[in-house]
Amino acid sequence: MNITVLCGGVGAARFVKALLAVEPGVTVSAVVNTGDDTELHGLHISPDIDTVIYTVAGAIDPERGWGLRDESWTAMRSLERYSQVRPSDSSAAPTWFNLGDQDLATHFYRTARLGEGASLCEVTAEIAQAWSLPIKVVPMTNDRVRTRVRLRDSDSVIDFQEYFVKHRHSLAVSEVTFEGAESAAFVGNAELEGSDLVVIAPSNPIVSIGPIRAISGVDERLAARRDSVVAISPIIAGAALKGPADRMLSELGLKSSVVGVAELYASICGTLIIDSADADLASAVEATGMRCIVTNTIMGKPESDHALIQAVLGVVS
Amino acid sequence: MNITVLCGGVGAARFVKALLAVEPGVTVSAVVNTGDDTELHGLHISPDIDTVIYTVAGAIDPERGWGLRDESWTAMRSLERYSQVRPSDSSAAPTWFNLGDQDLATHFYRTARLGEGASLCEVTAEIAQAWSLPIKVVPMTNDRVRTRVRLRDSDSVIDFQEYFVKHRHSLAVSEVTFEGAESAAFVGNAELEGSDLVVIAPSNPIVSIGPIRAISGVDERLAARRDSVVAISPIIAGAALKGPADRMLSELGLKSSVVGVAELYASICGTLIIDSADADLASAVEATGMRCIVTNTIMGKPESDHALIQAVLGVVS
Repeated sequence: MNITVLCGGVGAARFVKALLAVEPGVTVSAVVNTGDDTELHGLHISPDIDTVIYTVAGAIDPERGWGLRDESWTAMRSLERYSQVRPSDSSAAPTWFNLGDQDLATHFYRTARLGEGASLCEVTAEIAQAWSLPIKVVPMTNDRVRTRVRLRDSDSVIDFQEYFVKHRHSLAVSEVTFEGAESAAFVGNAELEGSDLVVIAPSNPIVSIGPIRAISGVDERLAARRDSVVAISPIIAGAALKGPADRMLSELGLKSSVVGVAELYASICGTLIIDSADADLASAVEATGMRCIVTNTIMGKPESDHALIQAVLGVVS
Repeated sequence: MNITVLCGGVGAARFVKALLAVEPGVTVSAVVNTGDDTELHGLHISPDIDTVIYTVAGAIDPERGWGLRDESWTAMRSLERYSQVRPSDSSAAPTWFNLGDQDLATHFYRTARLGEGASLCEVTAEIAQAWSLPIKVVPMTNDRVRTRVRLRDSDSVIDFQEYFVKHRHSLAVSEVTFEGAESAAFVGNAELEGSDLVVIAPSNPIVSIGPIRAISGVDERLAARRDSVVAISPIIAGAALKGPADRMLSELGLKSSVVGVAELYASICGTLIIDSADADLASAVEATGMRCIVTNTIMGKPESDHALIQAVLGVVS
């Protein structure tokens, strides 16, 4: 079976890893959000792509959920010397975005290849190959798309990583936009067309899946094959396992529940898988026009992973 | 006394350090070659500036003569993974140019500040300040100048660092050019004008001092004050202490001796200091029109450093 997974970072990466563990025979393509890519110190950073690759390779730091295990931080520590001399109107060489010494090699390679004219798609395939990945990893686009966040209190608009990392997603958001998405070309068309099943991973629907959907044509393609698209709710009992998805839904006037997720996905996705903790909301999910499957959606234990993956695959078999 | 030193890398850095050790009261400006600057992995690398700053700060690795002491190499080691997957027509993320983990912070800061629109001059001053340097460090220009080397056997032209580091300066050179020098603006004018003495450091006359002299107006300014310009020969008994200066002089049809150095500098510099090992060539040096001072020019021992520095200062006192 060919499965294409629309991915953000940690939640998606864990889902893909669980999928491969439970059903090693499936062919997987991960189409990954690049809206939170950023440039730091001249380097091109693609956080979600790296999280997917490192996780599937078994190299991710399991505690942090991002970056490499057994990492050292010498370069970043050394950068503190310069924070003290930079002019007050400069934000050069920030230390709030931590990059491990091993991890830097990935950013060096990506930046150098992009500088040579390679596409992000090509570079991503090479990086995945370097990690001997058993899946295809595709950035959502080769073009520049940047997720921007408007803060409720100051009404200022900042880059996603500034919101997410520097401010630890603690500020209320009034709007999320995807700069460049309208003119960006989606590069996952072949993956969508060649797949028996499309999975919307349990990622933040606004800032992880949102950028992919903001590219023109993506929603239409998904809507046209809605019955073979399944999503796993990243919201369990009203809360996100990780990250600000729950607060962000509320701040944007949406329901911070599986019903809110269903309302976002109903037009493009036939089935929503929700956690047993939300079993009482199954009929409200179905009222949005989606089929609803209730199972354990928290990954990390073989038995429950097995149940989740079987539920996912069951959508088309 | 105000002293301006025209600098390459290691030899110049050691001279400045000796100068400050022997005469802590002098005011020193180092005008540094940037012809061997390079871009790697998206980072702007200024090898000679960093060697001068790290050396004067006492942070240089004394064995290697470049980079920081107690350095680690995790990022570069991690890059090897990607060397194996890069396409054959790519030279992305080379591992032949080694960058230590601590050292990377300097390149991150420089790259980020340049990206914000700061000049190399401003960034260099900030980096020097971060290392609490007691001297002023000035890049020869804010503009892009690149030293290029034509190889005798293949007649191909390559970047200086490729010649110097990748090929370990083992290939014969038929020509050295300084791309961009003609249109570059010299930024050391104030330092030249404000100095009682200009010292041409014991650096490679072709590829370290050559790029500075290739900028329009520099030779004229030096020639006009020739009596207060002193050079220290980087060639001792026909050989360079470090690097390819001796072979390079021969390959370019020049004399690989203090006389060859004198012939290169006679028009811009009143005095050449040569090592005692070359005492028999003093009259040949003077035949070029320069005054010649013979002393121990090998730095690193307090007594001989003292003699060298006194000889240098004696030129104008």
